[in-house]
Amino acid sequence: MSGELFERLRKRAVEIHVEDHLRARLERGDSLRVKLGLDPTAPDLHVGHLVVLDVLRAFQDDGHTVVLIVGDFTAMIGDPSGRSETRPILTRDQIDAAARTYLDQIHLVLDRDQLEVRRNSEWLGEMKGADLLRLLGKATLQQVLQREDFADRLKASSPIGAHEILYPFNQAFDSVAIHADVEIGGTDQLFNLLFGREIQKAYEQEPQDIAVFPLLEGTDGSMKMGKSLGNYIGLTEPAEEIYGKTMSIPDTLIEKYLRLVSGLEGPDLDAVLAMKPRDAKAALARQLVKRLHGDEAAARAEADFESKFRKREVPEEIPEFETGFPIRLVEAMVKSGLAKSNAEAKRLVEQRGVKVDGTVVTGDDPLQPGSVVVQVGKRRWVRFVVK
Amino acid sequence: MSGELFERLRKRAVEIHVEDHLRARLERGDSLRVKLGLDPTAPDLHVGHLVVLDVLRAFQDDGHTVVLIVGDFTAMIGDPSGRSETRPILTRDQIDAAARTYLDQIHLVLDRDQLEVRRNSEWLGEMKGADLLRLLGKATLQQVLQREDFADRLKASSPIGAHEILYPFNQAFDSVAIHADVEIGGTDQLFNLLFGREIQKAYEQEPQDIAVFPLLEGTDGSMKMGKSLGNYIGLTEPAEEIYGKTMSIPDTLIEKYLRLVSGLEGPDLDAVLAMKPRDAKAALARQLVKRLHGDEAAARAEADFESKFRKREVPEEIPEFETGFPIRLVEAMVKSGLAKSNAEAKRLVEQRGVKVDGTVVTGDDPLQPGSVVVQVGKRRWVRFVVK
Repeated sequence: MSGELFERLRKRAVEIHVEDHLRARLERGDSLRVKLGLDPTAPDLHVGHLVVLDVLRAFQDDGHTVVLIVGDFTAMIGDPSGRSETRPILTRDQIDAAARTYLDQIHLVLDRDQLEVRRNSEWLGEMKGADLLRLLGKATLQQVLQREDFADRLKASSPIGAHEILYPFNQAFDSVAIHADVEIGGTDQLFNLLFGREIQKAYEQEPQDIAVFPLLEGTDGSMKMGKSLGNYIGLTEPAEEIYGKTMSIPDTLIEKYLRLVSGLEGPDLDAVLAMKPRDAKAALARQLVKRLHGDEAAARAEADFESKFRKREVPEEIPEFETGFPIRLVEAMVKSGLAKSNAEAKRLVEQRGVKVDGTVVTGDDPLQPGSVVVQVGKRRWVRFVVK
Repeated sequence: MSGELFERLRKRAVEIHVEDHLRARLERGDSLRVKLGLDPTAPDLHVGHLVVLDVLRAFQDDGHTVVLIVGDFTAMIGDPSGRSETRPILTRDQIDAAARTYLDQIHLVLDRDQLEVRRNSEWLGEMKGADLLRLLGKATLQQVLQREDFADRLKASSPIGAHEILYPFNQAFDSVAIHADVEIGGTDQLFNLLFGREIQKAYEQEPQDIAVFPLLEGTDGSMKMGKSLGNYIGLTEPAEEIYGKTMSIPDTLIEKYLRLVSGLEGPDLDAVLAMKPRDAKAALARQLVKRLHGDEAAARAEADFESKFRKREVPEEIPEFETGFPIRLVEAMVKSGLAKSNAEAKRLVEQRGVKVDGTVVTGDDPLQPGSVVVQVGKRRWVRFVVK
């Protein structure tokens, strides 16, 4: 069973360290404490989080204990420099609410029985200045400044609050406090996770093994999924939203989503990967809704999407109109009968009633060579074949 | 009175900041809290410390309060990295003993009535991790890394313990804790003192004015005076030691010692500065002993030194011998009759029985042009005039 877990990890992880050590522990059947850190200032989980949550679930299924760390210590202090809007000060009530929200969402994936949820204020809040001084003494400034964002900001002469140096120490000390055997995270956490190993060694603990996993791009297909970027699919969104948003991802992301967050494995996964993009994407959307809202909701969301989509979609049979290149939109509309006159064509464009290949246009640009669908209002289409 | 104090400060200080602000406060007759930080791991004070102690005394004489900070906080923790031998861990008993030693010595110069002695563990020891995080948030890492020793070590890739970043913050917070109006120190403290201003501002206090003073070279004439360098004159050394060590400083340092640590001022100082070096140095030595052990001890130390010195000294009347340049030592000794033969001259040199200008020589080098005194044994001298 545990050899199997290691293979699953290796398939998904970008980097595992120390690979042989972790494999040996899993094969030996050690019971491990597997840590994931969570930021309580952004308690809405999204599909991007499924990458690591699924990995944690696999650990649970293999008999290990998952320890979630809610990083409330700095959140309760806020950014002491007062410069950052991304680290608001949270009250204990807000932290409590965030922690509850987290748990409600996390129970969609994780088993409550092999789960510890800890807040790092438990130990960091109790530290005295002298303890912190001792903690900082465990590493050099140069080690910390290797972290990519610090190195970049130093190079760019963009200010680093001196307190920010403490954050990797805090996160690393969380591993000491809970005696983590394994810590996982996104690839952007590689430095912090490795740093945890160093600090554990300095406190004479066996260092944790670490594994980092790909960051999932959002529905826009370019940026990492995140609430602030408006490109996310929340775990608790309504079924129809999850289905529709999933259908909006670019085809290039279908395989990554399927492999990392669909929950499908083995032959089931292979079957979907073999489908045409449109069908694979529908299978992914159905699968995500099923994971988060169940079978029935998945069927309903699919039906709902199909019906809306059919209404909006270009009918399969639409009149074709061949024309020479170059030709501008207004002229093409008049020639094909979509408008009675130049004046009517221009008015229709101005009223935002004209779409070219599904996109509302506002000017009189030439049509591109090839096949171009022009739609006027809700019901009239012409496919131009521009040669 | 206070305008006079400002002029005395300006004469001695290498840098005062903010000059106009400090002058105005002194002229207005504000009662100021004047801070000096002391390192409890090196509680033996030496003549180098008189530079700043005399300045503090001048503040006291002008009605201000001196606040000495014993930096026991880090001393009780030691160097958490375990790398530095220069920051041993001290127990509370050792700190207490060091503080007493300090006071015994400091009372040689300062008035007990306008003196507060504080330990920074009073406030730093009570800080929680969160307080320290807030403190660090008051400045950027880049500000701290401007400190010369940090900048140098970064450039040289020589390790900086992450905890060392805290030290300037700790020292700066001392100024906040005691509401310092002025902080003074050696020129090597310039960064820390200016940093104190920034941290006070961040805690919404009026920033302290600062003044830095020259570092006094030790008796070797080149390195800063310090116990570890073996070039220091301790404040509590016996009168004869203080007198003798002072007489051993190079002539080039006499004026600096007179101006910075003799305690002489105005016409008294001018009179000594006008003397020949030998006499000025004796006046300095007498004055230092007088300050630290009283008039009688000064007279005794001088007499003691004179008597020993006379025994060793070159007599006022010694035979002169003119000779052409170049001429080597052995040849000169034979020609002038100091030795009967080259062989005897060489043997005398080998037996370390020959001094040139007071220094034992071991080789047969040419004599320098000008006046050169060669001594053989205890009683025979020739002054060569090498042309």
